[in-house]
Amino acid sequence: MSIPGVATVEAVVEAGGAGTARVMARVEERMVELVSSHGDPLARHGGETITAGGKRLRPLLVCIAAGVPVAESDTLVRAAVAVELVHAATLVHDDVLDGANLRRGRPTVVAAGGRLMAVATGDLLFSRAFAELAAGGEIGPIRALSVAASALAAGELMQRADRWNLTVDQDRYLERCRLKTGVLFRAACELGALAGGAPTGALGSFGESIGVAFQLLDDVLDVTGPVERTGKPRGTDLLDGTVTLPLIEACRRDPGLALLDLRALADPRRAASVCDQIEATGALDHARDHALALVADAKAALPGWLPDAQRGALELVADGVVERYS
Amino acid sequence: MSIPGVATVEAVVEAGGAGTARVMARVEERMVELVSSHGDPLARHGGETITAGGKRLRPLLVCIAAGVPVAESDTLVRAAVAVELVHAATLVHDDVLDGANLRRGRPTVVAAGGRLMAVATGDLLFSRAFAELAAGGEIGPIRALSVAASALAAGELMQRADRWNLTVDQDRYLERCRLKTGVLFRAACELGALAGGAPTGALGSFGESIGVAFQLLDDVLDVTGPVERTGKPRGTDLLDGTVTLPLIEACRRDPGLALLDLRALADPRRAASVCDQIEATGALDHARDHALALVADAKAALPGWLPDAQRGALELVADGVVERYS
Repeated sequence: MSIPGVATVEAVVEAGGAGTARVMARVEERMVELVSSHGDPLARHGGETITAGGKRLRPLLVCIAAGVPVAESDTLVRAAVAVELVHAATLVHDDVLDGANLRRGRPTVVAAGGRLMAVATGDLLFSRAFAELAAGGEIGPIRALSVAASALAAGELMQRADRWNLTVDQDRYLERCRLKTGVLFRAACELGALAGGAPTGALGSFGESIGVAFQLLDDVLDVTGPVERTGKPRGTDLLDGTVTLPLIEACRRDPGLALLDLRALADPRRAASVCDQIEATGALDHARDHALALVADAKAALPGWLPDAQRGALELVADGVVERYS
Repeated sequence: MSIPGVATVEAVVEAGGAGTARVMARVEERMVELVSSHGDPLARHGGETITAGGKRLRPLLVCIAAGVPVAESDTLVRAAVAVELVHAATLVHDDVLDGANLRRGRPTVVAAGGRLMAVATGDLLFSRAFAELAAGGEIGPIRALSVAASALAAGELMQRADRWNLTVDQDRYLERCRLKTGVLFRAACELGALAGGAPTGALGSFGESIGVAFQLLDDVLDVTGPVERTGKPRGTDLLDGTVTLPLIEACRRDPGLALLDLRALADPRRAASVCDQIEATGALDHARDHALALVADAKAALPGWLPDAQRGALELVADGVVERYS
């Protein structure tokens, strides 16, 4: 699906030491507590969104960026919860936009409770993220998270503005990936670094790079499928008018494709056939290579002062991003 | 409309001294700057939302709560901008929910740019509010605003949960008003108090009370109209399934009304006739009296240590909330 496999996550938790499992368990507890403390509608819909889970990659990054072995602390739990709440808020709002019915095999908030419920649920998860950090009393994490939250929304706006537009180039696409995915991974690492008392710069860059790679590979998977693996039909992005690197590069290689009218697709079978055309140009290798290079560079650029155990755990996460592709 | 008249706002600005006009001008500039610094889609849609204005009652409350004459400061401008951005974000999201086409005589973001654009625009305004406060480096205002933002979303969820439900009672309705409107007025006063170095408790309570009164009178205006004054047909809340105090009290007084099926209204003329029925029960006086009592109590409870000039300015705002009714 859209996250590294369970095996990778388990390996990272193990690499982080016993503290990691404890922090991650407290993150789950705290999130359930938060959504159940706001009355019935949120408990029902926010609870569903949050307990449906996902592999908690971002909280895990917060933990590992704080240091290995992971030292349990309230600050760390708060940071990890806040990052995951912003992520959850984004998912809930994305589902409103996409009119999606299922996420992780469960009904989305918008499907179960309607648009109004979903917009308000996302807003509440969002607000609670900042309240969670404000309770900790430190300004640095709030600053980092507010930058990331702004970027997420700006990325959505950019994606909307670029919809159906086949003249979008690779640089603009990569900037969108940075805004939509990279910057929250960056914030996860920065919040971890702040909790661990380390400088944020290098860890933040690492996070951003693997976040962009993550998005790139997600976009490749949309073309390759199969549905059993991704949980959605091939070419969902095409049908949605979202122009990603595989298509951008394929249009460059096959000028015939550049004449495609995405709005006219409107049919999963035609979308699947365009996916085949994209694949035939070799554009998927181009996109995948770009992602692999980002991950390799991110690993290579990890600063010298990092203890070996922490470096190893961060590399495991980075490899997990790649692994889900292969 | 939904705010005190221009005359009241001008009187409050004047009462606050020359600093008020300067702070309010800087709030406008800063908001335009913020929305234009996030690329074209936000500049277009967020810009429209923000420049369409409104009377800036909440920023004005921030100023006056900070002290009179208002002393211009970056902290104060940031606080006022942040409160207004959260308010603007809520309006943009509310319009998605209501499918509203016009606000303040201009196309809403959802009408001009679609649902996706509107959800993302609201999210961005929201994030920028916290970024604005984080830039100031103080935790107190962030804490107050995150509580208010959570309450706003919880209030929306509550309104959604109570939709079409004629068994909602006055207490539950008042709690919804507190969440939807009172708590952001409270935050405006608390942020002002923090900027002015004053205790937040009494000013916060004052803000919350006049905020609830504001919402109550807004709900009365929905029943009385006329459309030339409110900008929307009478009974819009009824058609929308939003059960407010006028209807709750009318049902108590006229058991026939309690049998009404709101979902079956579906027609502005029938809604207007239900408005007449509500009015005939005297329920509007009940709701209005409740609001007036809240405002009177809020004024009476202003703390003794407030300088006369500041007390006078706060009373002007409170009177403005009532004035728009009469």
